[in-house]
Amino acid sequence: MAQAPQSPSVVRIGLLGCGNVGAALVQLVERQADVIEARTGVRLQISRVAVRNISRDREVQLPEGVLTRDAHDVVNDPTVDVIVEVMGGIEPARELIAAAIAHGKPVITANKELLANVGHELWAQSDAAGVDLLFEAAVAGGIPLIRALRESLRGEPVTRVMGIVNGTTNFILTKMTDEGADYSAALSEAQRLGFAERDPTADVEGFDAGAKAAIIASIAFGARVVAGDVYHEGISGVTAADIAIARRLGYVVKLLAIAEKIDDTETIAVRVHPAMVPMNHPLASVRDSYNAVVVEGDAVGQLMFYGRGAGGFPTASAVLGDVIDAAVNLQKKTFGSIGSFKRVPVMPIDETSSQYLIGLDVEDKPGVLHAITGVFANHGVSIRAAEQEGIDDDARLVFITHRAREADVQACVSEFRKSPAVRRASGLIRVIGE
Amino acid sequence: MAQAPQSPSVVRIGLLGCGNVGAALVQLVERQADVIEARTGVRLQISRVAVRNISRDREVQLPEGVLTRDAHDVVNDPTVDVIVEVMGGIEPARELIAAAIAHGKPVITANKELLANVGHELWAQSDAAGVDLLFEAAVAGGIPLIRALRESLRGEPVTRVMGIVNGTTNFILTKMTDEGADYSAALSEAQRLGFAERDPTADVEGFDAGAKAAIIASIAFGARVVAGDVYHEGISGVTAADIAIARRLGYVVKLLAIAEKIDDTETIAVRVHPAMVPMNHPLASVRDSYNAVVVEGDAVGQLMFYGRGAGGFPTASAVLGDVIDAAVNLQKKTFGSIGSFKRVPVMPIDETSSQYLIGLDVEDKPGVLHAITGVFANHGVSIRAAEQEGIDDDARLVFITHRAREADVQACVSEFRKSPAVRRASGLIRVIGE
Repeated sequence: MAQAPQSPSVVRIGLLGCGNVGAALVQLVERQADVIEARTGVRLQISRVAVRNISRDREVQLPEGVLTRDAHDVVNDPTVDVIVEVMGGIEPARELIAAAIAHGKPVITANKELLANVGHELWAQSDAAGVDLLFEAAVAGGIPLIRALRESLRGEPVTRVMGIVNGTTNFILTKMTDEGADYSAALSEAQRLGFAERDPTADVEGFDAGAKAAIIASIAFGARVVAGDVYHEGISGVTAADIAIARRLGYVVKLLAIAEKIDDTETIAVRVHPAMVPMNHPLASVRDSYNAVVVEGDAVGQLMFYGRGAGGFPTASAVLGDVIDAAVNLQKKTFGSIGSFKRVPVMPIDETSSQYLIGLDVEDKPGVLHAITGVFANHGVSIRAAEQEGIDDDARLVFITHRAREADVQACVSEFRKSPAVRRASGLIRVIGE
Repeated sequence: MAQAPQSPSVVRIGLLGCGNVGAALVQLVERQADVIEARTGVRLQISRVAVRNISRDREVQLPEGVLTRDAHDVVNDPTVDVIVEVMGGIEPARELIAAAIAHGKPVITANKELLANVGHELWAQSDAAGVDLLFEAAVAGGIPLIRALRESLRGEPVTRVMGIVNGTTNFILTKMTDEGADYSAALSEAQRLGFAERDPTADVEGFDAGAKAAIIASIAFGARVVAGDVYHEGISGVTAADIAIARRLGYVVKLLAIAEKIDDTETIAVRVHPAMVPMNHPLASVRDSYNAVVVEGDAVGQLMFYGRGAGGFPTASAVLGDVIDAAVNLQKKTFGSIGSFKRVPVMPIDETSSQYLIGLDVEDKPGVLHAITGVFANHGVSIRAAEQEGIDDDARLVFITHRAREADVQACVSEFRKSPAVRRASGLIRVIGE
């Protein structure tokens, strides 16, 4: 059938997936189409939507014939100009995006798992094809971090990117901090309120933050980093006692994703773990399910980007910003190159260094402190502060080290775990310097 | 003289002004040229620099023949591809930028005074000519706010932009808050440390923040707003007592620039004044000379951008981001359109509404409170909380109103000022809701 002639200013969007984010995008495009047209000369239109279950009730009304179960059909439809992928998962998303790029269609994706695993392959393909592949929404939801790193800070000597990129764990840690709740109670509340999944593993064990850290490191340093390169440790081992001690010492416990350059080398370190953040650090006041990312550069100093890291509308807002970009670029027959990525050494976690908080439940008897400090000394770990809490059976020693190598601190901890005087070694939490 | 053939990937920068920001930019371009070339394929080079005093000692070494006293010479030089204006002031900056655009040369400017007064004329000229006019550094220094508003949030229904955009006054207010210092002592310290000018008027009376508010309102709402449209009130009337009361009530006093849409109309309100910010609001923890801007949108929720609002290197970092953009666009023979600006009603300050803190030094005798509450009642201003501090000659009444019209509150204050029972009416500070 012959297509109706298409006005050059209309850009038709093919949407893959219509869950929370997809449905919010449909509503946002409808509401904002006039404003966008006035500002950019481009008229956006949702023209095809691929869903798994076509008969499900949806929040959004779509005209007859827009919905389909066949995502390939959307990608291959010659009337679709731009593809938005919000279906999640690696396959078939990867294959569909590759096909769209091969057709010369710009792609916007919110899919962190995909990009953290096979992003480099797709970025290379899109750059070679001269087609936009945009992904603001894949990291920190509605916060315009990726554009800042890709464009505003292209010339900045960025040294470190560090942030709270998982809202579920920040919600849980905020509850634990404010109410003295223990981990499992706070997790249950997060689940009840819909901030945590029934199976919370991806969030609480740091997989989600690890994927985002891989993408951040790739973009900030032009480095070829994938999810598997990122050391990650979650918050399930953080106790109410750890948080109380941190607080007394002037710190807040946060789950941080950190990507940093090691001195002036090409080596980078990328990791996710709970950290003690000084109360006067801008990340310390980021509460509840909010996300925030600090970018440090030699020239710009410290920047922070703060906002909603998840949710249908915030994420759809980021997707829409990218869609407009791609649509405007299509009109101008141009695209935003992401450039190439270098293979650089990624420092193993054992070689990184930090200050550490270490808590030891011990027998309260003479000689114990001496034995423990001997272990630290043997491994070259120097102590900045030590204190005892409680007495007798409840005695707990808390140490904060000076900057020390991870491997040395881990060696101390495994000796402590073997020692009859130590009942429990806990709260190995890295300290972020001021 | 014939020009040497120019490699297409070299982009030559003509710099107008070589003070703090200009000198930092020269150093940054030199340090980062290789990285930028690797990422974008463009080689940046500072080729001409116009300065007022050619023989002055400078931090940066420039090759023979680069420096000139004639800014027109730089703009007209056919080997100069991009103009960076960091000289400040309205003329001759306006005239030079207009000439550069007429030559088809992209311009990057850090000049808020210029843009807040004649920006609309220059934006219209650059859009008509299809030439980039970029100005990230003109608002909030190194913070990538303008790009976020222009690009990431183009489709977002932005309702309010509100922030701390003047580092001098934030430094002074932080000192007053932390140390209980009074205004003049805090100002002196700021001057001693180089955070305030010898003549601090532009900062402390809100002129600087007002200019930035005009630019923010223009970009966020596509509205034609100039400095003269912005109501501004500075911090010189804020007392240590005001700050102490605010603190006791759970607020921090900040100088805010606010641009907001009035309900669902086209009307906007743009103003600068001291405000009581709830302690748990993200702006409350922005300290010292840092800047931060909160953007609120119906879809994205609350975003915040935080960083250094001034200083040579942070500002140069923002300029460099724009230079790279313009250079890449030059190579692609494209540019970023800023679009058109609508004339919309700007609500006079008298018609805006807010909650207010009002402090009254009064005679401590029967009937005074009754007389005062009568004034509030007559003007339809409803009181949320009232308390008395001190007794006898030191008696001070502090009121917080419910949301009330500015004109009504001002009418109350002028009646109080005429009343024999009121010795002093002070601390009229607007309260930002949570």
